This record gives sequence, structure tokens and C-alpha cells, in this order.
Amino acid sequence: MALVVIGGVAAGLSAAARARRADPRLDIVVLEKGPVVSYGACGLPYFVEGRVRQAEELIVHTPEYFRKERNIEVRTGARVVSISHPRREVRLESGESVRYERLVIATGARCDRIGVAGADRPHVFTLHTLEDAGRLRAFIRDKHPRRAVVIGGGYIGVEAADALRRNGLAVTVLERSANVLLRHDPRLTAAVRKQLEKHRVELRCEVTVHAIEPDRVADVPCDLALIACGFRPNVELAVEAGIETGATGAIRTDDRMETNLRGVYAAGDCAEVNHLVTGRPAYIPLGTTANKTGRVAGANAAGGRERFPGIVGTTIVGIFGMGFAVTGLSEEQARREGFSPVAARIDAHARPRYFQGTDTTVELVADRSTGRLIGGSVIGEEGAAGRIDVVAAALHARMRVEEFAQLDLAYSPPFTPVWDPLLIAAQQLLKEL
Amino acid sequence: MALVVIGGVAAGLSAAARARRADPRLDIVVLEKGPVVSYGACGLPYFVEGRVRQAEELIVHTPEYFRKERNIEVRTGARVVSISHPRREVRLESGESVRYERLVIATGARCDRIGVAGADRPHVFTLHTLEDAGRLRAFIRDKHPRRAVVIGGGYIGVEAADALRRNGLAVTVLERSANVLLRHDPRLTAAVRKQLEKHRVELRCEVTVHAIEPDRVADVPCDLALIACGFRPNVELAVEAGIETGATGAIRTDDRMETNLRGVYAAGDCAEVNHLVTGRPAYIPLGTTANKTGRVAGANAAGGRERFPGIVGTTIVGIFGMGFAVTGLSEEQARREGFSPVAARIDAHARPRYFQGTDTTVELVADRSTGRLIGGSVIGEEGAAGRIDVVAAALHARMRVEEFAQLDLAYSPPFTPVWDPLLIAAQQLLKEL
Repeated sequence: MALVVIGGVAAGLSAAARARRADPRLDIVVLEKGPVVSYGACGLPYFVEGRVRQAEELIVHTPEYFRKERNIEVRTGARVVSISHPRREVRLESGESVRYERLVIATGARCDRIGVAGADRPHVFTLHTLEDAGRLRAFIRDKHPRRAVVIGGGYIGVEAADALRRNGLAVTVLERSANVLLRHDPRLTAAVRKQLEKHRVELRCEVTVHAIEPDRVADVPCDLALIACGFRPNVELAVEAGIETGATGAIRTDDRMETNLRGVYAAGDCAEVNHLVTGRPAYIPLGTTANKTGRVAGANAAGGRERFPGIVGTTIVGIFGMGFAVTGLSEEQARREGFSPVAARIDAHARPRYFQGTDTTVELVADRSTGRLIGGSVIGEEGAAGRIDVVAAALHARMRVEEFAQLDLAYSPPFTPVWDPLLIAAQQLLKEL
Repeated sequence: MALVVIGGVAAGLSAAARARRADPRLDIVVLEKGPVVSYGACGLPYFVEGRVRQAEELIVHTPEYFRKERNIEVRTGARVVSISHPRREVRLESGESVRYERLVIATGARCDRIGVAGADRPHVFTLHTLEDAGRLRAFIRDKHPRRAVVIGGGYIGVEAADALRRNGLAVTVLERSANVLLRHDPRLTAAVRKQLEKHRVELRCEVTVHAIEPDRVADVPCDLALIACGFRPNVELAVEAGIETGATGAIRTDDRMETNLRGVYAAGDCAEVNHLVTGRPAYIPLGTTANKTGRVAGANAAGGRERFPGIVGTTIVGIFGMGFAVTGLSEEQARREGFSPVAARIDAHARPRYFQGTDTTVELVADRSTGRLIGGSVIGEEGAAGRIDVVAAALHARMRVEEFAQLDLAYSPPFTPVWDPLLIAAQQLLKEL
């Protein structure tokens, strides 16, 4: 039996590797349109920053590794131009056809420049592939730009702003909506703005960019522009083959990551997934979800029966050393989803004062009618990842605030205060419920 | 109505403060036998180390604060010698009686020296109260001891060993059982031993100390001995008043922290609590549990109806900068509790290499018959507290390993690797189940 995987980054290679473990005799071919596979795309901002010195450091495995160690054929420069499911084959740009019995679509996403005039100018960049990052790094090194505009205040936008600022550039971030980090959360946006401004990065919200001029974007002078918005799932190949997308615009699958075509799976940034808090499909493309859905798709494509239950929307981003972490729904998002949200926000020390504990801010959101925890955010220089993960676990478990407030969390002065900020926030929230 | 609280540290003052918030008109009297109240006992090793410079830094609030700000009468030097429940009064050492309608017993625990000859020599210390720590600190400063023996390899023992070593002393830890940190876990003990030895602290297990000589303990030469074993709940007052203890030897309560005597509550280090993994009472005295059970006892003593569901046995201890965190049951403990345990242990990076991620070790334990997660440990210089707390939350939720392996945890290179060590361990454990 032959498994073909379209896409050779996180989801595609997770699927291929998992399928191989499930079935040692399967023929597995991975078709990647780009020149490299298996790189950590989330590390790209740190390559731009200069912390990662060689782009190669971000490459986890080579095609040779997959061939020799996993018996998986990985082909680069192999762009699929069409899928014919009735004939069970994909056609490559070269004209060649590849037959499959099972197919995993892991075509990822792209940064859509459509609608922005001047997006093809030489001082305009995206930060989506290893090549993008290499081009940007070379431009900074060779052209010594002094002022950058980052279009988009999502994760990649603020990480890139941080990286560019650390290279000495003046940086302005332009965000179309009223809020950054793709979350309707004015308090989170205010905290991000404060941290950016502390490090002299300007943030302007509610600015729509229509054109990039050679020396300015939306009246902000610059000699470097980075497009970090318009993230779109690559679904065209799938749609032309008769595969359905959901309301999010990404490929719809069941909880086995199978599409409406039997034997065809989708995973990673091209697919939507179930949001465990809302119970509805969501499109929150992230490396972690790409790996997990890829594994499930690969296991099932190889004849297994694994489930991907869904996500709760956990993310963290570092901005000049401060962690901004969220999970579930913000108060505003919860309202839009039909909950009756109640929120509590507290400031506390992440550790006792005599261990130089820094400030941390925790916000928890509950649904008034059920008492269930439905979201939260943690902002701080230390412990933000660990604390948001506790909230995420509680969301997976559909925990009520009352139960969350009694969690038996670790305590010792070098690590945490005796009342963890999470528990202080939960107690505060209980009073509001 | 009058509420009397016996004990003015974590549980007692939590109870008093919570009762005050619940009922502004209650008469509340806290009787503390020692000279100070409201201090962070868990900070004592860091005072011995010298990191906390003044003992006063560990005092959270003074009796004046409670009187003025909370309208709570806090009496120090007020040792209760008997409780007469039929007469609803406690008798003090001074001969005075204090009447109550509701009583909270928060008498704490002690380090029992019984059975150790020479425990009253001037170079022998315990580390239980602020006075103990002050005496030890003064001895180190004035007498310049060079070799210390710590009797007991529990939390206080290893923290004290760390603190003494940082003061330049040669340190040997003697532990009666085969394992440290009060946990039947040979792998954890091996890791602790390795870390202690790396910092030139000797650990000898299965050594029973019968006597402390002026210049040696169990053949180990020393000019300072610290007793950090024989931790016992102070239950005598309660038992004499007809209050029942459980199989653990600590005071038995219901989930409202009420004892067998109506209107009499117990909280903190003198009480046992429900272990949510085993479903049986456990005695794991910790500051966090003292605060939580104190709050519940106080709320209920003031007429409320709050529940304390129980603990999962989460602890963390820092040894020379490395965190050793556990929750739930070790494989060996699980076996003794009648489970069919399966364990998986993995080593991974706590963060990506280009962010100087250090090694972290995660062990997860599941019950084979139910697939339920029942325990775990995390060892590492960073992130151990946050990661064990995620496991703790999962234990509260009675999560199965299958569900745990799909947790949507935060990922960004400055904080975590794309596959969190927790998820790698869970995947490993799934293969074993």
C-alpha cells in the first residue's frame, strides 16, 4: 500500500513518521514543494534576531535521514498541482504523476499579500519559510536598514518586531484590528503595548495597509517592511479535488483527521480542528497542533484508529523577555461565543520576594451559568508557560472554578509563592461568580 | 458568637482571616504558644542559608496587624493545655480559660526527638520555628562549625543540607529509609543523590540514628547536628478532648474539616486529608495544604459550607538550583496502594537548544487497568514547578493518559520545545500501556 503526503514540514513529516511506526511495510512518499523539509518554522524570528546563527540549525532532519533511518522517500522541489481522487493520484508541476491509496494533505498556510500594492518590492519580506528568513537576514546584514514597519500584530509580527529591534532598527507595528495576538482582549493588548513601548517599539492598531511605498507604509517612514498578516490555509489543491472546507475556510475533517474523501486526511496549518471550549471548529494554526494532527492523520492513514480530540487555543509569545500566554477564550471572545463570562484579573509575585520573584498577571474567565473555567491569560517574565498549561489542562478537563481553586500545586520558595497566582486569581473569580 | 483558633501560623491564621471575611461580627481569638505568629516556615532554610537576611522578613503579619486591620485578637505566648468541649472552653498554661462556640485546632506538627539520645546537646538543632532557625544561624556565625550531619532526608533535611553547604560546611545527610523525600522512588532518590554529590554533600541511606555524640553521629564526625526527621502531628490536646485521629495518626476530619466533635475543626499540619488518587486519608503536611484547609475550616466555623476535596501530593524541593517535583504516586507507592502501575521515564530538553534549554527528566505513572494517570515526577533546573502542576491538575481531573498526551500546551522557542517533555513522556507511557 502507498501513502502519499503533500507537505514536508511539521504535520506532513509527523504523519509520515507515525505511519511508518504503525506499518513498517507501507510505501511512504512525502512531496515538498520547497527546497528543504523538516525545519522549525517557529524558530525563524530567532534566526532573524541572530540568536540562531545558521539557518541549518533549524533543520531537524534531512531527506537523507528519512530515507536511511525511516525508509520514507522525501522529495523536495516536488510541487503538487492537482489531486485526482477517482484515479488515486497526484500530479506534480513536472508533469509526473504519483499514485496513492492513502493521502495526507499537509499543505500548510501562507501569508497572503493579495490586496497590498507594492508587496513585491525588494525591501518587503514575509517570514514564513527558511528562505524568507534567509533573505531578510541577508538584507539586514547587507543593506543596513534603519526603520522597519511590521504589518500585522499577531505572533509572528510581534516576534519579528522584537528580533528587528534587537538588530538596532526602529520598529513600528501596524495592526488592522483593535487588538494584537489575534485575541479580542483589550487588557492583553494594553499589556503588549506597554512592553513594546518600554523597548521603544511603536504599536498602532486599527490601521489598514493598502500599499507599501518604497520609503513608507501608511505614513510611517521605513526602509524595510515585513508582512506578517493575512495568514491563510493552503486549501486550493484540496478544494479542486472535491474536499470540503469548514466555516473557518480551512479543510474540514472528522476527529480522525479524515476529510470527506475516504482515505484522504488533512493535518496541520491547512486544517481546522475542534475547539474543546466552544465545541466548534476553529482555525488556530500552530506548530504543536500541526505535529499532533499530523501524528493522528499518519496513524489512521496507516490503518490505525486514533482520535484528535481538539485544542483549547493555548499560545505563548515572548516579547523582550516577557511571556504573554493565553488559553481558551478571553472575556470578549466568550461573550461572542454565547457564554455569560465573568473574569478576574490579579497581579502577584511569581516567586517570594527573597527569591527576586517578578510580577505576574493572571486573568481567568469563567462561564457564570455553569461555573466552568473557559479561558485565561498569564503575563510574566517567569513561569507563564507552566501556569497557562495548568489552565489549559483544566480546560481539557472542563474543570469548574471551584475545583480549580483547590488544585494541589507545587510550592517551595525558590519556585513559587505559597498561594500560587493561579489560585489567587481563582479565589478572586469565585467571589465574582 | 466566639471562634477560638489554637495555633497562629499558616492554617490557624488562614482560618481566622477567612472566618472574619465570612462573618464581620464574630469574636475571633487566635492562641499561639510561641512568641511570633504568621511566619513563612518554608522560608526557614533560606534564612539559615543567609539569602533571607533578617528573620523578620519571613513574618507576614504582626498581631497588631490582625487586631487593627482584621479585628482578630491574636495572643502570643498563649499555650493551650486542655480543651473541655462539654464546657466549650480551652485552658491556658497560665490557668486562664477561654470560652468558644466554635473551635479550630491548628496545632501543627513537631520534630520528635524521642529515641535519639543526646538530642539536647548545644550543637543539636531542629528547623521548625523561627526561633530554631535563629539559634542555628547564630551558632554558625559564632561557632564556625565545619562539619554538619543532617538527620533525615526529607524536604527540610535536603534544603537544610543545601543551606549548610552554601555556608561552607561539609555536610552528610543520614536517612533511615532507602529513599529520600518521603517517597518510595529509587530513581528519584538516585537523582537526588547525584545532585547532592555533585555539590559534595554526602547522602547515606538506611542509617538509623540512636544517639548524637558531642563529636559524631553514627560514626560521621561533626560539630553540628540537625534533626530533620520524626515529623509528628501535634494531636495530644485534641485526643485528650475526645477528638479522633485516623490511621495516619493525624486528626481525622470530614471534607468540611470538622472533627468528630460538632463545631470543632482541624486544619494544617495536625490534620490528615483525603488523597484524591488513592481515595484514602493521607498525612502530607505542607504549607499549601495548611493554608487551604485553614480557609475551609475558618469558612465553615463561621457558618459557611465549604469543602476541601483533598490533595494529590504535589511537592517540589530545590537542591542546589535543581528542582525535584513529584505528584500523585510513584510506581512503587502505586503498587503498594493496589494499582497495577506502568511507568515511563524520559529525558528531554526543557527548551530548544538555541535557547540554552537544560535537561529535564519526566516520569509518568499510570494504572494499567484504567489507563488513568496516577502520578509523576519532573526533575530539572527550569520549568519543573509548572510541569508538575500540569500533572497535578490532570490527577485532580482523573485524566487518562490518552487524554493527557493530547493536551494543548503552550509552545514558543524561548519557553518550551514543540513537543513538551510532558507529552513525550505521555506518548512513551501510551506505548507501555
